[in-house]
Amino acid sequence: MIRVTRRYRFSSSHRLHANRLSDAENASLYGKCNNPYGHGHDYEIEISARGPLEPRSGRAVDPAALDRLVEEQVLRTFDHTYLNSESAIFQELVPTTENLARAVYTRLQASWNSVFPGPWPVLDKVRIAETPRNIFEVSENDG
Amino acid sequence: MIRVTRRYRFSSSHRLHANRLSDAENASLYGKCNNPYGHGHDYEIEISARGPLEPRSGRAVDPAALDRLVEEQVLRTFDHTYLNSESAIFQELVPTTENLARAVYTRLQASWNSVFPGPWPVLDKVRIAETPRNIFEVSENDG
Amino acid sequence: MIRVTRRYRFSSSHRLHANRLSDAENASLYGKCNNPYGHGHDYEIEISARGPLEPRSGRAVDPAALDRLVEEQVLRTFDHTYLNSESAIFQELVPTTENLARAVYTRLQASWNSVFPGPWPVLDKVRIAETPRNIFEVSENDG
Amino acid sequence: MIRVTRRYRFSSSHRLHANRLSDAENASLYGKCNNPYGHGHDYEIEISARGPLEPRSGRAVDPAALDRLVEEQVLRTFDHTYLNSESAIFQELVPTTENLARAVYTRLQASWNSVFPGPWPVLDKVRIAETPRNIFEVSENDG
Amino acid sequence: MIRVTRRYRFSSSHRLHANRLSDAENASLYGKCNNPYGHGHDYEIEISARGPLEPRSGRAVDPAALDRLVEEQVLRTFDHTYLNSESAIFQELVPTTENLARAVYTRLQASWNSVFPGPWPVLDKVRIAETPRNIFEVSENDG
Amino acid sequence: MIRVTRRYRFSSSHRLHANRLSDAENASLYGKCNNPYGHGHDYEIEISARGPLEPRSGRAVDPAALDRLVEEQVLRTFDHTYLNSESAIFQELVPTTENLARAVYTRLQASWNSVFPGPWPVLDKVRIAETPRNIFEVSENDG
Repeated sequence: MIRVTRRYRFSSSHRLHANRLSDAENASLYGKCNNPYGHGHDYEIEISARGPLEPRSGRAVDPAALDRLVEEQVLRTFDHTYLNSESAIFQELVPTTENLARAVYTRLQASWNSVFPGPWPVLDKVRIAETPRNIFEVSENDG
Repeated sequence: MIRVTRRYRFSSSHRLHANRLSDAENASLYGKCNNPYGHGHDYEIEISARGPLEPRSGRAVDPAALDRLVEEQVLRTFDHTYLNSESAIFQELVPTTENLARAVYTRLQASWNSVFPGPWPVLDKVRIAETPRNIFEVSENDG
Repeated sequence: MIRVTRRYRFSSSHRLHANRLSDAENASLYGKCNNPYGHGHDYEIEISARGPLEPRSGRAVDPAALDRLVEEQVLRTFDHTYLNSESAIFQELVPTTENLARAVYTRLQASWNSVFPGPWPVLDKVRIAETPRNIFEVSENDG
Repeated sequence: MIRVTRRYRFSSSHRLHANRLSDAENASLYGKCNNPYGHGHDYEIEISARGPLEPRSGRAVDPAALDRLVEEQVLRTFDHTYLNSESAIFQELVPTTENLARAVYTRLQASWNSVFPGPWPVLDKVRIAETPRNIFEVSENDG
Repeated sequence: MIRVTRRYRFSSSHRLHANRLSDAENASLYGKCNNPYGHGHDYEIEISARGPLEPRSGRAVDPAALDRLVEEQVLRTFDHTYLNSESAIFQELVPTTENLARAVYTRLQASWNSVFPGPWPVLDKVRIAETPRNIFEVSENDG
Repeated sequence: MIRVTRRYRFSSSHRLHANRLSDAENASLYGKCNNPYGHGHDYEIEISARGPLEPRSGRAVDPAALDRLVEEQVLRTFDHTYLNSESAIFQELVPTTENLARAVYTRLQASWNSVFPGPWPVLDKVRIAETPRNIFEVSENDG
């Protein structure tokens, strides 16, 4: 069993604001991240898959297939966007990086079999660093 | 003579769009950075000052004074904002990181003497990494 | 379930010397880290907490609360100190980074409920990089 | 229980080519990594061991012993070599980083007891970053 | 005046061996880098250009044009190759990173006007990090 | 002309305290860096040399010679020490990183010709990062 991780980046902007809360509660809860015009980040995202080593190719994960999946399901959706306005999912949810990490995990999981139809590899973990000091992970057993 | 550099960070969003150009020209010039809702970055900014070593303190630059100047003139103005809407300067100028670097240099230069009233240290360089692969510098001799 | 990690730094000095051992044994065991006057490091510390996503706020951990706890229980105690002389705990214990990591874990765990009174989030892991090449972790199941 | 990780580097070159496959299959599977003359990487390798804190020394792992083991079993074998021609193991196997990670894990495991004869510490994980965006891990439970 | 730097990566292998020297001299001069089968690196390369800010676009350098030039003149030539065998220039020259840096500088300079036909921007510096601890720079005034 | 930079690390501790100043002045000037027991850092030091490419070897600087000089003049003197007590130079001077950078520059310059007896390479710059956010440089023209 090998765990393989590939790292990607995307740049987006967001505003943390919960519709169900008052303005004062939002200001208190999110501080300067509640600024009405939003602000941005360079999200660094790591996708980990896990599986046995396939002896013929010497690989556990086809990197080109994983890149294609991440391009289609993550980068094309979130890169160079304003998350609040442009992602259907964040019409309802506050675009915290917790919610973003879960959305990425769910999107990858939903399309996983179309790219990796066999029993292996499986999606093991999604890790998003909002900044180098602020990191969020969703794992296989937690998803 | 010693050059002293201190590193700061701020997170902002921007949209690259030149009012004087047509939509097609903007799309061609800025690509996905022209996306109407904007996108964001974690800007890493380095401020360099230069001066002789002051023998009593063993320092060339008072770090607390530089931090205060950068806090007041840069971070308070640009951190956690949408540059296009919230900075007076970017009502006119496209918020490219070239323009941002020059704006930071100009703002620091304009207030420099209030914080460092003597002949030394001088402002030597402003360096902004929009991302780790995309870096912009304005220097003393170029400003 | 989401795992949230926040990164902090502190600068301290220490000397590796076990009182119960002879000088020769100390020299052999700790090499140049046994130097009588000590030496220092910039410790990079990551605190991971784990819990369910709270739907209203879109968060699993209140970052301001975690920062406050780490400030009070870790940074205020260890930052800019000589560990051997200034921390009660290292009157007895050798200030290896193994012992430091366990001390940080224990201190955070002891005050955790005062800051996070509910069942979630829980303290998941303390990771200290003494240098980028030398890393120590204490986890929930090992503590 | 503490997990201790130490980081090393080595520079090697390799060519991805499976003897059992046709040239066209190799080209399709490995792309530019199939280039006949090979290419190279600076592999960053992290070795993690796990064990209880030994109270007298305040350590869980003797770092000099681990360094010696890694030097003998990993760096001396793979550093500054062309993996395909100079490592017996890659006469048979394609030198993917999956196979390299497993080889490193197996070599360390085979010599572990000669350096760490007690029940602790145990080898916990081998992690190799082929590049910062391409990471491979073999763990205790997967080996 | 603004200096703009963009960062790229390529992976190659090389062997340091000077044909005009004896085997013993080569071994003494290059140490393990003289290993007959070669070894490899992930070269990190930064290209800096310098010029005035163009007011309409807010840019000093068209990043897409620079990327195209680097792709054509550097990455396509050196990425995923064995420098000694596959680059005409290293039939004669030892593929040290000094020689590589100069070759990159010369190639970019030779094609610069075809991509940047105006007086600005100019090529300011080529910087290659063979590893993070080993860095080589060729500048405008030194070329 | 090529500029060659090599990076080294050392771990030391220091206390910022100017003997000629009162305790209150020291506290105000150096803040927590004035803590009586000191604290520590992992200094990252880069030494740059500059010279023409020597055609036979393809090098501008003999890296083994530079390593030897830095080992003898810098690492052996400052690594794993308490700067205030163990370095003669800091009996007089406050061990700020400004003073440390100048001391390193002076020491290398004084022994340079014994290792590099020809006209080239010359010592170009000493750069010390006390932390990644706090950087000090002494250059050829400023020394």
